Amino acid sequence: MSHFLVFQSDFGLVDGAVSAMKGVAYAVDPDLTISDVTHDITPYNIFEASYRLFQTVNYWPAGTVFVSVVDPGVGSARKSVVAKTKAGQYIVTPNNGTLTHIAAFVGIEEIREIEERTNRLRNSELSYTFHGRDVYAYTGAKLSSGKISYEEVGPALPLDEIESLELFETIHDEHSVTGQIDILDVRFGSLWTSIPFENFTDLHVSFGDYVEVQIYKQKSLVYINRIIYGHSFSDVMVGMPILYMNSVNHMALAINQGSFAKAYNIGVGENWTIKLIKVQ
Amino acid sequence: MSHFLVFQSDFGLVDGAVSAMKGVAYAVDPDLTISDVTHDITPYNIFEASYRLFQTVNYWPAGTVFVSVVDPGVGSARKSVVAKTKAGQYIVTPNNGTLTHIAAFVGIEEIREIEERTNRLRNSELSYTFHGRDVYAYTGAKLSSGKISYEEVGPALPLDEIESLELFETIHDEHSVTGQIDILDVRFGSLWTSIPFENFTDLHVSFGDYVEVQIYKQKSLVYINRIIYGHSFSDVMVGMPILYMNSVNHMALAINQGSFAKAYNIGVGENWTIKLIKVQ
Amino acid sequence: MSHFLVFQSDFGLVDGAVSAMKGVAYAVDPDLTISDVTHDITPYNIFEASYRLFQTVNYWPAGTVFVSVVDPGVGSARKSVVAKTKAGQYIVTPNNGTLTHIAAFVGIEEIREIEERTNRLRNSELSYTFHGRDVYAYTGAKLSSGKISYEEVGPALPLDEIESLELFETIHDEHSVTGQIDILDVRFGSLWTSIPFENFTDLHVSFGDYVEVQIYKQKSLVYINRIIYGHSFSDVMVGMPILYMNSVNHMALAINQGSFAKAYNIGVGENWTIKLIKVQ
Repeated sequence: MSHFLVFQSDFGLVDGAVSAMKGVAYAVDPDLTISDVTHDITPYNIFEASYRLFQTVNYWPAGTVFVSVVDPGVGSARKSVVAKTKAGQYIVTPNNGTLTHIAAFVGIEEIREIEERTNRLRNSELSYTFHGRDVYAYTGAKLSSGKISYEEVGPALPLDEIESLELFETIHDEHSVTGQIDILDVRFGSLWTSIPFENFTDLHVSFGDYVEVQIYKQKSLVYINRIIYGHSFSDVMVGMPILYMNSVNHMALAINQGSFAKAYNIGVGENWTIKLIKVQ
Repeated sequence: MSHFLVFQSDFGLVDGAVSAMKGVAYAVDPDLTISDVTHDITPYNIFEASYRLFQTVNYWPAGTVFVSVVDPGVGSARKSVVAKTKAGQYIVTPNNGTLTHIAAFVGIEEIREIEERTNRLRNSELSYTFHGRDVYAYTGAKLSSGKISYEEVGPALPLDEIESLELFETIHDEHSVTGQIDILDVRFGSLWTSIPFENFTDLHVSFGDYVEVQIYKQKSLVYINRIIYGHSFSDVMVGMPILYMNSVNHMALAINQGSFAKAYNIGVGENWTIKLIKVQ
Repeated sequence: MSHFLVFQSDFGLVDGAVSAMKGVAYAVDPDLTISDVTHDITPYNIFEASYRLFQTVNYWPAGTVFVSVVDPGVGSARKSVVAKTKAGQYIVTPNNGTLTHIAAFVGIEEIREIEERTNRLRNSELSYTFHGRDVYAYTGAKLSSGKISYEEVGPALPLDEIESLELFETIHDEHSVTGQIDILDVRFGSLWTSIPFENFTDLHVSFGDYVEVQIYKQKSLVYINRIIYGHSFSDVMVGMPILYMNSVNHMALAINQGSFAKAYNIGVGENWTIKLIKVQ
C-alpha cells in the first residue's frame, strides 16, 4: 500500500482529538505518512465534507487512504464504510452522504462495510462517541499500512447502498446554463458553482467575451451584471468581477483581490442558483 | 527511540514560530516524524495545555516525545523539565502546571531538569524569549532521535517538585456525584466535567435512565433538568440534551447537533460545578 | 537533496487547496518530508509572506525547498522563480516581493525563472488560477526530491530582477534610533519593529535601564512612555510593558501577559513609526 493516510473532520484543531487519531494510526504503523485535508469542515456539514474530498482526492497517489469524519449520526445505525475510487484511493467514512461528489464525479469502484468487531482499537469497546479515533483512524491505518487487505475491511456492499446527497442538475438551453452556488473559496470570497466547464463550453463563449450573470435567492433575482469571461483574476482590474473556470474545472465568479460573496451578500446551497447567459 | 516528536503551544499558526521550531528539530535529525497536538491553546492557559496532553499522550506509542510550550514565565526561574510517563512517553515543558493531568491520571515515572548549557541551540545564547525553539524543540529532537539519552537531558528532580494546578476533587454520596466543568469540546459546545466514569457508575444508573443535572455558577443554580443518560448523541433527537461518557472516560453533557455551552451560557473552570443526581 | 518541502500561502486551511498541493508533491516523490510555515497569511499580503519566510528559513537545513504562494497577480506577467539563499535553502515563489526580507537580511545567491513548459503538472494546461498546485508544488517537489537539479528549474535571472518591497531604513543619531512597526506577534499582541538589535546597541543601553519610547501614526504621536529594557517578559510584572530583542533579533515591545497592540490601538506598516531614545 501507499502508506499515505490523510485525515479530514469537523473537529477543529483547538483540542487533542485529531492528534489522538494520529497517535492511534502511528501506533498501528510508525512508517505511515500522515497528512490532512482540513479539520475546519463546518460542524455536521456533510456537503462540505463531500466537496473537500472531491477537491483533493484525485491529486493523491493511488493507494492513499482518506479518513473523513463528519458524523452527526455517530452511534446511530448509519454504516461505517471504506470506498475504493476508480483511481485507486480509499475513503474511510460514515456512509452518510460524504461520498456524494466522489461517486458522482470521480467514480467509486467498490464499497465495503467496516467489520467493527475486528477493526476497532483495543479496549475502546465502552467508547461510543469517538468512532473517528476508535474505528476510522485505526482501520484507515491498518489498510494504509497493508496490515489488512481491502477485503479484510469487511463485506462488500452493493454500490447502490452509497448514501448520496441530492446534487443540482445543470439546466441548459441553447443560450444559457443554470446551476447552483455550491461552496465558497472561503479565503477569497469567490463563488464556486455546480456548473461543469463542459456545460459552459456549449455556449461557445471566448475569453474576453461578456456573459450575463444572474444570481437568484430562491425565486428572487439578487444580482445581475455582464461580466468578462477570463483565464484568471489578473485578466481584469483590481476590484472588477470575473467569470472563470476554477481549479476543479467548474465555473466560478470572483472579484480580483476582493470578495464577491461579501460584496453582494451571496450564500451557498440549494437556495442559491446562478444563470449564465450568452450575450448575443 | 520512537522518532516521534509532537508539538503543542499557544503560539497559533499565523506566524512562523512553530515552523522555526520544526526546522530546528529536523536539523537535529531529518528522520524525525513530527506532528502536532494543537497550537491554539488559549494564550497563557496552563490548564488547557495540561488537559490537551491528557487527551492525547496515551494514544501515542511509548518513546514519543511531546514538546509543550505554554510558558507565561519564559525567562523566569521556572524550571525546564522532561517528564517520563509510566507508559513511556516523554514531555518536554516548563514545570509550571502543564504536567498536572498527566501526573494525576496517567502517571509520571521520573522527571529531569534540562541542563540548558548543553541542551541549547548553538548561537542562541542571546535569545531570551523563545525557549520553545532554542531549548525545548532542540532538546526534544535530540531525545526523540536518540542523540541524547533521557539521563543526558539533565539531573533527576524529586517527583514532588512537579508543579501541579489544583484539581477539583469529586464529591460523592449515595445518590449524587459533584464535579467541575473542566473544559469544552470547543467545536460542538459539549461540557466535559471532572467526574470520572468510575465515580458515576457508583450511582447505578443504566442507559436510558434520566439523571437530574444541576449546574452552578459559584453558589447560584443556573441550570436544572432531567436528562437521559445515553451512549452517544444519536440516542436522543436532534436538539435534545444527553449525558454521556466522553472520549477520555469522564462524564459530559451535550445537545445533539447543538451547543450546550451556548444554549445555556455555561462556562468552564473553578467557578462552574455540576451535580448529577440519581432519580429515585 | 534534503527531501524537505515546506509550504506557505494565503489559502487558509478551511478547504482542500493545500492538501491538493501536498498530494501533487507526494505523487512526485512519496519520500518527501512535507511541512508548513503558515497558510494564514493575510490574503494578498506580500509583506507578511516575505516576513514569515525571514522568520523561518534559516532554521531549516540547507537544501530545504520552500514553496510560498501569495500571488495576487496569478495569471499575470509576473515571473515564477526559485531563489537559492546563501545558506542553501530554496524558495519557490512568484517574483512579486515575497523575497524582500530574504534578499535584504539572509542573502540570495542565485535566482532562476521556472520554465513552465517542462515544470508543470501533467494535464493542467487549461488551469489558470492555481499555479500553487500546478506549477509551484510540482516544481518544488521535483527539486526537493532531486528529480531535477536547480539548473533544470529554468534559466538564471540577474539578481537585480528580484522584486523587492521598499523597507524602512533605520534612522539613528547619537541618542535615538527610529524604525517602523513591521508586524505583530499576532497571538500575544507584541510589536515587532524594523530596528535591528545591532542598531539599538549603539545607544549603549543596559538591561534594566529605561528607554523613552515614542510611537507615531504618520506624524501624530500616539504613545509615549519610559519602558524598561529587559531580557524577557518575566523581567517585569504582569501587565507592565517591556522593550526587548525578539526571536529574529529585532527590537520589540510587549506587555507581560497582555497585548500591547490592543492596549494602545497600534497598527503595523509604513504609517507606524517608533523612536527609541536613550534616557540621559
